[in-house]
Amino acid sequence: MAVGLKAPQVLAPVPGVRLGSIEANIKRPNRLDLTLFELAANSICAAVFTQNQFCAAPVTLARKHLASRAPRYLLVNTGYANAGTGADGLVRARLCCAEVARLTGCAEEEVLPFSTGVIGEDLPTPRLAAALPSLLDRLRADGWTTAAQGIMTTDTVAKGVSQHFEIGGRPCIITGIAKGSGMIAPNMATMLAFLATDAAVNGAVLRHALESAVSHTFNRVIVDGDTSTNDACVLVATGQAGNIPIDQFSGAVYQTFADAVSAVCLTLAQALARDGEGATKFMTVEVTGGRDRDECFRVAQAVANSPLVKTAFFAGDPNWGRILAAVGRAGLANLAIDQVEIWLGDVCIVRGGQRAHEYTDAAGRTVMANSDITIRIGLGRGRAQDICWTCDFSYDYVRINAEYRT
Amino acid sequence: MAVGLKAPQVLAPVPGVRLGSIEANIKRPNRLDLTLFELAANSICAAVFTQNQFCAAPVTLARKHLASRAPRYLLVNTGYANAGTGADGLVRARLCCAEVARLTGCAEEEVLPFSTGVIGEDLPTPRLAAALPSLLDRLRADGWTTAAQGIMTTDTVAKGVSQHFEIGGRPCIITGIAKGSGMIAPNMATMLAFLATDAAVNGAVLRHALESAVSHTFNRVIVDGDTSTNDACVLVATGQAGNIPIDQFSGAVYQTFADAVSAVCLTLAQALARDGEGATKFMTVEVTGGRDRDECFRVAQAVANSPLVKTAFFAGDPNWGRILAAVGRAGLANLAIDQVEIWLGDVCIVRGGQRAHEYTDAAGRTVMANSDITIRIGLGRGRAQDICWTCDFSYDYVRINAEYRT
Repeated sequence: MAVGLKAPQVLAPVPGVRLGSIEANIKRPNRLDLTLFELAANSICAAVFTQNQFCAAPVTLARKHLASRAPRYLLVNTGYANAGTGADGLVRARLCCAEVARLTGCAEEEVLPFSTGVIGEDLPTPRLAAALPSLLDRLRADGWTTAAQGIMTTDTVAKGVSQHFEIGGRPCIITGIAKGSGMIAPNMATMLAFLATDAAVNGAVLRHALESAVSHTFNRVIVDGDTSTNDACVLVATGQAGNIPIDQFSGAVYQTFADAVSAVCLTLAQALARDGEGATKFMTVEVTGGRDRDECFRVAQAVANSPLVKTAFFAGDPNWGRILAAVGRAGLANLAIDQVEIWLGDVCIVRGGQRAHEYTDAAGRTVMANSDITIRIGLGRGRAQDICWTCDFSYDYVRINAEYRT
Repeated sequence: MAVGLKAPQVLAPVPGVRLGSIEANIKRPNRLDLTLFELAANSICAAVFTQNQFCAAPVTLARKHLASRAPRYLLVNTGYANAGTGADGLVRARLCCAEVARLTGCAEEEVLPFSTGVIGEDLPTPRLAAALPSLLDRLRADGWTTAAQGIMTTDTVAKGVSQHFEIGGRPCIITGIAKGSGMIAPNMATMLAFLATDAAVNGAVLRHALESAVSHTFNRVIVDGDTSTNDACVLVATGQAGNIPIDQFSGAVYQTFADAVSAVCLTLAQALARDGEGATKFMTVEVTGGRDRDECFRVAQAVANSPLVKTAFFAGDPNWGRILAAVGRAGLANLAIDQVEIWLGDVCIVRGGQRAHEYTDAAGRTVMANSDITIRIGLGRGRAQDICWTCDFSYDYVRINAEYRT
């Protein structure tokens, strides 16, 4: 039951990238659960990974491979996360890479593995290996919408977007897909996302653009406050657009490119919250008037993480006292509560730290009846601001997570 | 549906304290919602309050009154929290104190007000005032069980306990009651609790014993991670036991007293988690082998706050990967995951950072079938430890909090 979100109908191919998904029967039959990206020679790649200390075996291996070679293949399985699996998990992740290498003739280090699903259970390596030959046969330039489905777990809607831009008069494209619905909290990437562009970009600029985009998009999404063991966000640049390679961190050319990366990340990040487990409302939490961005984020995070705020939004109840209580426990030193304002959409509910005199419960309920709601919090003590996106907390969140392994 | 918790049948009177509750019709009819404690002259009083910056008007006023005079009355209402109500809320809280003072002849500053309930709505002062004369007529030494009911909000079971101890050969008693079921997270007191003893204790020692007890009992309980605007924990000493006043912070006499305070706080704190909103399981999270207590607490808190861990326990599903993921996101620098152990009751599920070889899902499910479950986490990098208590996350949590204001 995603909020205001539809699966992408068309995703633009990216010259230099072919991809596909297959039913490999990894955990359950009859679902696309194994996805492969093939990257043209000379493509470069940047990635950010989870900061959870219990990172999964494929994360460990992908980091290592990425440091040694430019990748030619990205292999993504759902069903099992291959996390909490120790040395055996690393061997299994490596075997998957080795099998891709054997079938394609690339080096093992040129394959990056990604897994998502149940933590702590063994990856059924033979089933992955058995499916690989057919999967290789299916690789197509226009495989993006299939791949967007192929990486889903508890997601109800496939997530993807394409954006056109121009570098030095050359038309370029960037297409991205993402999965993620639960175990979502901002600390690096918090989900799986794969973006590719045909623009020519040098490696340092590519990393900079990705890290910058992630910091204000994916890292600003909260579903349930739990950071996954398997998060990764990858940006590939194939260079086939023929532009003069972007090699500066600033200037109009860089900005055009960075804006396109950010726009794709933003759409995908918001899609994660729109499709949050059990979500019936999509909420934007904007905090302004802070001393620095960090304290604005702490306030936004306290509100977006509060089960009491989230259940009130599920109920459509403008129980703004819970927002106020969350602001008050965010740990800001010397917060002058008589400077705090809180708005629900265009309705001011708190001014001077207390209920606004013109506020009525009816006005609050009108805003709460919407499925997209903005909560604006003014701290009144500075010029910094930050934002995050979240969703409500419903019976279905509990159902989905109580039944997850059954 | 509290977990392994029954309402106290008998709570021992504390010489020097009379109390009672009445149906004052504050928010809903036919429920005890106004409670008054009368403290004998020469009683002394220590209290800790919420650290939420949006503390309620009664918290602000109680702090101020306590700083100026020894209290003679504690007035507690449910229904409305009188928080987020600005200057008008302070006036309303003061009017309640003034009315008690007028009826009893004490000073306004000798009355401490406490409120709990919906945030941001006006306290119906006239209804409180109208009920006070009848309430004063009802004050009794054995009013503790009634008062334990009178302070309840979403609690399903009244919470109280008495403990006998001896100081210098004199028998003493300490009795405490508490309320709290949601908006529970450790940061000072996180609920309302009222304790009284007839032991003679000087003020500084009383404060020290209370603060010490709260730090490892009430401040170690998490239901939903939200710290209330109205928390308070009060400890009264009437001195009527006739012992030589305790005036030392150490030694056997102090320890006997401090142990009694801690035991009462511990029982009440655990009762909060056992009666957590919608709870079907009571969980103890023990963390050992940390470098310091703070990092042990951060790990325990990450596990106890995780909606994914809590929904898995609701389902009786030993999905230990979620515990492991929570440990990994607790923010401990340089955590060596191959030193981490996780136990469910007596069953080792993770050793060396991965699934223990002897672990079976059946063994995990056997532990998960219990209603009282201990999660033990060994960090393997030091000798510090900490503990917290929590409960699971059920459909009823969502229902209770979606319907709270209706």
